Amino acid sequence: MSGTYAFQKNRVEKLRELMSESKIDAFLVPTGPNFFYFTGFDTESHERLTLMFITPDEQFILAPKLMEEQLHLHSWVEDVRPWTDDQNPHRMARDYLESSKASMVAIDGTLPYFHYAPLFHNSSSKEILGDAFTSTLRMAKDREEMDNISAAIRKSEEALKLTINFIAEGVTEKEVAAMLHDNFKKKGIETPAFETIVAAGENSSVPHHDPTDRKIARYEPIIIDFGGRYHGYASDTTRTFFIDKAKPEMEEVYEIDREAQENTLEALNPETTYAGADRIAREIISRKGYGNNFIHRLGHGLGISVHEDPYLVPDNSQLMKENSVFTIEPGIYLPGKGGVRIEDTVYFQNGKCRSFNIFPKSISYI
Amino acid sequence: MSGTYAFQKNRVEKLRELMSESKIDAFLVPTGPNFFYFTGFDTESHERLTLMFITPDEQFILAPKLMEEQLHLHSWVEDVRPWTDDQNPHRMARDYLESSKASMVAIDGTLPYFHYAPLFHNSSSKEILGDAFTSTLRMAKDREEMDNISAAIRKSEEALKLTINFIAEGVTEKEVAAMLHDNFKKKGIETPAFETIVAAGENSSVPHHDPTDRKIARYEPIIIDFGGRYHGYASDTTRTFFIDKAKPEMEEVYEIDREAQENTLEALNPETTYAGADRIAREIISRKGYGNNFIHRLGHGLGISVHEDPYLVPDNSQLMKENSVFTIEPGIYLPGKGGVRIEDTVYFQNGKCRSFNIFPKSISYI
Repeated sequence: MSGTYAFQKNRVEKLRELMSESKIDAFLVPTGPNFFYFTGFDTESHERLTLMFITPDEQFILAPKLMEEQLHLHSWVEDVRPWTDDQNPHRMARDYLESSKASMVAIDGTLPYFHYAPLFHNSSSKEILGDAFTSTLRMAKDREEMDNISAAIRKSEEALKLTINFIAEGVTEKEVAAMLHDNFKKKGIETPAFETIVAAGENSSVPHHDPTDRKIARYEPIIIDFGGRYHGYASDTTRTFFIDKAKPEMEEVYEIDREAQENTLEALNPETTYAGADRIAREIISRKGYGNNFIHRLGHGLGISVHEDPYLVPDNSQLMKENSVFTIEPGIYLPGKGGVRIEDTVYFQNGKCRSFNIFPKSISYI
Repeated sequence: MSGTYAFQKNRVEKLRELMSESKIDAFLVPTGPNFFYFTGFDTESHERLTLMFITPDEQFILAPKLMEEQLHLHSWVEDVRPWTDDQNPHRMARDYLESSKASMVAIDGTLPYFHYAPLFHNSSSKEILGDAFTSTLRMAKDREEMDNISAAIRKSEEALKLTINFIAEGVTEKEVAAMLHDNFKKKGIETPAFETIVAAGENSSVPHHDPTDRKIARYEPIIIDFGGRYHGYASDTTRTFFIDKAKPEMEEVYEIDREAQENTLEALNPETTYAGADRIAREIISRKGYGNNFIHRLGHGLGISVHEDPYLVPDNSQLMKENSVFTIEPGIYLPGKGGVRIEDTVYFQNGKCRSFNIFPKSISYI
């Protein structure tokens, strides 16, 4: 991260432009992804109210006293207003909004209801969900973000490369996941970005399968869906391997899935919508007779959050947005038999879609 | 976890009793801690609506289609109502509440505003925060919970024991944290329950310090605040060590903090409130002249969440509750010099408070 926080300050200025167009008097951001996006400070969300206020003229952070020092060290926001355990932070926030006559307040959607209720029940201001604004900003990745995502993907792929040497008949799903996590560390990944999926045999027909003690057997597909975090940004990649060789039906399914993944990536252009991308992949798979076995969306945006806008779903009629980053991950699942999923993270730039991934997608036996 | 889910079913029945007393028609629980508490299914919260409905007569889970199989495998709730990407789950939830004429709806406080807004803006029902109900239930730990917390603490303490052999002059804070995490795995801890704090020298005067590359030096205090997760339950323990020996001022501070910790634990009885516990510790520390250096609350409840009710803060006038589990963690921080914190997790039972911890609290040089 830049020591000057130039990217972070620029993001706040861009938010102010959007706020001005929509006559929003205050934007409230609790700790979490958007707080990191605007301040540079990455922290878990706590039950204690920590809230950034962005207004046309100022920005400050209402925070528990014991976070004050850290906020000064790790963010650019100078105005930190600490509260102590004998104060009521919700009351302090309400008082500020009332005294500043904020009549239209946008709220970051991650604010939990237990903060929302004491902040806004019977309030005189009008509240709206602010996620459309932050999502618009976050969809167009800036240079710092592109660099971090690219590094996260490269390092995770290197960890996968180390891991596949270790996969063999008799190894369990959990052992593969543990080995991948060790290799994450070796390659400079700070932490897994989500629970790694390792699904072998019939388990691979469950899209979100958690790794078990099940041993991997010959001729089985094994799906590895994994991501690591680097400088606050996530990677998300899936590859499907076969042990020794694949049964003919699964091999056919693999090639169909790969064709859907690669051809969709190639086909995207400035006239394509995110729904259109989903449709392209679905049509390829349906034509081969497996339409009912592709039981999830084509993909999702990726960045600070593992799942964020844009979503590649049938009702997202938005056109491809410059510098948006998202996954393309068609899957074909045959209940009781197994499944195949191939996932790249891609970016849309200058009218074309390119993949961050370099790990091969051709069918691979280990 | 019991294969019969007897504890989980019992928790839902107890919630129904509380709902009946308060004339609540429906209780809504998104994925997260309370979802795990009631269903036995432990999953991260996703942006996709997954919501348990508990009414006087039924319980069901509205869930994305791709979670359906997992929910059947890992929870006792038979009625899963799947939604697909071409459906609007918020609309489905509203339709259910309207058709069942639920006029008073309690909402789990972790529901994010981005789900709350489409579910309840302009709704005809009255919503209230349901956390007082779930908190009442969760404060009184049942046998399964006590066993899991106890195991989490024992295993984490064993990991600490292995780790201190490794601590010496020149080792960095980050290396200590990494070693502790490796030892967690060896001892059967599934994952850290929170970001481990390792704070040496002047860093130990920051209560929530993240580990850095700073090397540990002689005569310095080192605070290790750590917790591991076991079967969904967290541990939370802090010990302060000194490298070689302690400077006289820090040694004095250590003994005051230890006295505050141990005497408070001893003093608790059925007439004590949680605020009273905080006051006892604060008075001991203030009498010795360090009142202004104890800058946080005395403790917090612990269980599925690392921070939950009861909070040991000046305004919690509730009496000690049978089978409640909480931390007692006074700290004394001398800015620029260093700090001391000693934390046990304890339970209140049969009129007395006992610690789950067995790791020594006497001053210890390594």
